[in-house]
Amino acid sequence: MFPHALADLETPALLLDEPRMRRNAARMRDRAAALGVSLRPHVKTAKCLEVSLAMCGGAPGPVTVSTLKEADQCAAAGFRDITYAVGITANKIAHARRLIAQGVRLSVLLDSVAAARAVVEAMAGHAGEPLSVLIEIDTDGHRSGLAPDAPDLLLVAQALVAPGVRLAGVLTHAGESYHCRDQAALVAMAERERAGAVHAAQRLRAAGHAAPVVSVGSTPTALSAAALPGVTELRAGVYVFFDLVMAGVGVCGTDDIALSVLTSVIGHQPARGWTLCDAGWMALSRDRGTASQPVDQAYGLVCDAQGRVLTDYLVSAVSQEHGTITHRSGDPARFLDVPVGTLLRVLPNHACATGAQHAGYRVLGDEGRVVGQWARFSGW
Amino acid sequence: MFPHALADLETPALLLDEPRMRRNAARMRDRAAALGVSLRPHVKTAKCLEVSLAMCGGAPGPVTVSTLKEADQCAAAGFRDITYAVGITANKIAHARRLIAQGVRLSVLLDSVAAARAVVEAMAGHAGEPLSVLIEIDTDGHRSGLAPDAPDLLLVAQALVAPGVRLAGVLTHAGESYHCRDQAALVAMAERERAGAVHAAQRLRAAGHAAPVVSVGSTPTALSAAALPGVTELRAGVYVFFDLVMAGVGVCGTDDIALSVLTSVIGHQPARGWTLCDAGWMALSRDRGTASQPVDQAYGLVCDAQGRVLTDYLVSAVSQEHGTITHRSGDPARFLDVPVGTLLRVLPNHACATGAQHAGYRVLGDEGRVVGQWARFSGW
Repeated sequence: MFPHALADLETPALLLDEPRMRRNAARMRDRAAALGVSLRPHVKTAKCLEVSLAMCGGAPGPVTVSTLKEADQCAAAGFRDITYAVGITANKIAHARRLIAQGVRLSVLLDSVAAARAVVEAMAGHAGEPLSVLIEIDTDGHRSGLAPDAPDLLLVAQALVAPGVRLAGVLTHAGESYHCRDQAALVAMAERERAGAVHAAQRLRAAGHAAPVVSVGSTPTALSAAALPGVTELRAGVYVFFDLVMAGVGVCGTDDIALSVLTSVIGHQPARGWTLCDAGWMALSRDRGTASQPVDQAYGLVCDAQGRVLTDYLVSAVSQEHGTITHRSGDPARFLDVPVGTLLRVLPNHACATGAQHAGYRVLGDEGRVVGQWARFSGW
Repeated sequence: MFPHALADLETPALLLDEPRMRRNAARMRDRAAALGVSLRPHVKTAKCLEVSLAMCGGAPGPVTVSTLKEADQCAAAGFRDITYAVGITANKIAHARRLIAQGVRLSVLLDSVAAARAVVEAMAGHAGEPLSVLIEIDTDGHRSGLAPDAPDLLLVAQALVAPGVRLAGVLTHAGESYHCRDQAALVAMAERERAGAVHAAQRLRAAGHAAPVVSVGSTPTALSAAALPGVTELRAGVYVFFDLVMAGVGVCGTDDIALSVLTSVIGHQPARGWTLCDAGWMALSRDRGTASQPVDQAYGLVCDAQGRVLTDYLVSAVSQEHGTITHRSGDPARFLDVPVGTLLRVLPNHACATGAQHAGYRVLGDEGRVVGQWARFSGW
């Protein structure tokens, strides 16, 4: 069956450029090594065993997950050190205990005394390895977490002095780094993320808690940090594919983007400047992450079938299974005049979101031919 | 296993209120009967066998699909009359031929001489039932299709006088109806959709083509048309679940919406007025269809676990697995003050998009308990 040509695929189809993916994965491993911290890649972007292994350097290592389903899939493939980086609730503790029973060292996240008490209660009567708990620290005002100097930090830690659980340390994610616009801002954001997490861990230790783990990261800060003293591990995910948002932030170029959607031209409306294709939001996602960036890429940047960018041709509108390609200028005279049936590729705004629309990847090898097919794990 | 309580589910989870769904399905069947046309429901919203059967009144009937994967699934369940309502390309003809070989009367769509020639060429040597072809008519400037009076209409029809294919008629979809803001505009849009399709069919017939099928529809126009003389069939899909966009258009109320996402509160940032939950864009989708309506529902309207709307509480921001609930006013003092672990439900902007994020439905019965689980078919 493999290798075969792109023309043998039905469209739309999700393409993964394996050489680019491996290059991106190696770049982050080198980065973590240079910073002297361990890497705990986030598998939520790819949700794919082969990619998770590549991120870890070829064999199971520490990983971050966004769902317990991802943890299940990783555990089944031999991963034994998994951090679930979304605030835990009691209705997921039975699932967490099943993972621990399989031999997984599972760490979960919370940021309140109420959540700590609920977890302790749900872990009552647990035998065997305790559930590892990280306290989420908010270093950028982006989402959840306690401020590094919040009085509640020590109350949460105290609530976790209980059977069945073990306070492992602190975790933060500088999601606001996606809105940085220059290198100085990125470096400053990385330092803010580091300093906040280290400060919170020092407060815990001063109060007598062990708190060995200081976990930080996002793709932009991980690639921008000048140094990470006091940090023990770095988390990042989207770097393995990169996307137009990351290119807009400035941490990659479009020729680093490993993910694209193959589509066919299905018609034209020349008077309106439209070329219709069969990649709508079902294939591309509704993500408009570049809308707030200096260069808005609409629903994605159009390339030819070989992946060469067709400068300024965008998927400017989508419905479920239709995409409308226009020139960035909106000038109908500059419509993309290629025949019905022409194959094109669309670079995604947000690799996590575009990937989530598909059951798996068609893997492209060095020659631009399809050399394999990798499954994704989706759902919860 | 069934029935069980919502509290027994891990969150997030997609809930389908079966009584509401059956009421919505019956409403459209009654509507088509009153208008004297046959109903060809679109299965793309639910992508679910049980829902498709409910739309057809309990047994396989004519259906519309947005992917050949949906056609495969319907065919395997005994559906024999399927219209694929996205412009066809040559790389899908082998798949179409497999469906015909299974006994499916498959109709495909195109709007250009180039596409007609490509289909005729790809059908060369086909034995057995021909591929039925509908010419797409553009009655609202929304997307694809030929204008009802386009000279090319007759050239496309002529190109389809060939072995292996059969011109079946015309199809149009007034997607612009989603932007109508009052009943008069909806009635006018329905008439424009009808008149354009009928005019195109009459031109084909005057030129000697049979063109028996005149297919129109969208949920807003189907529910608003005053009369449909000359039309043979009505297509619509999202009505079976309805959503906040349809409520904004005015063709349903929020208590008709059969789809919601169950989520748990995972934390609070009271100073910012935020209540965090575990339904992010992965569970809700990135669809912002109400953004252009008079009432913007952000990423969805929040309800309690019983489905009662918590007026003016919205999921105002999302990341992959996090949702941020705020009061519509943005006033931090009015943050949703419910404990960590509280179950909530979120009504979707766009049922097609939210459904697509999930592998299946948890089915709610009359008592609001989970009475079953139905699978979705996704992908291409």
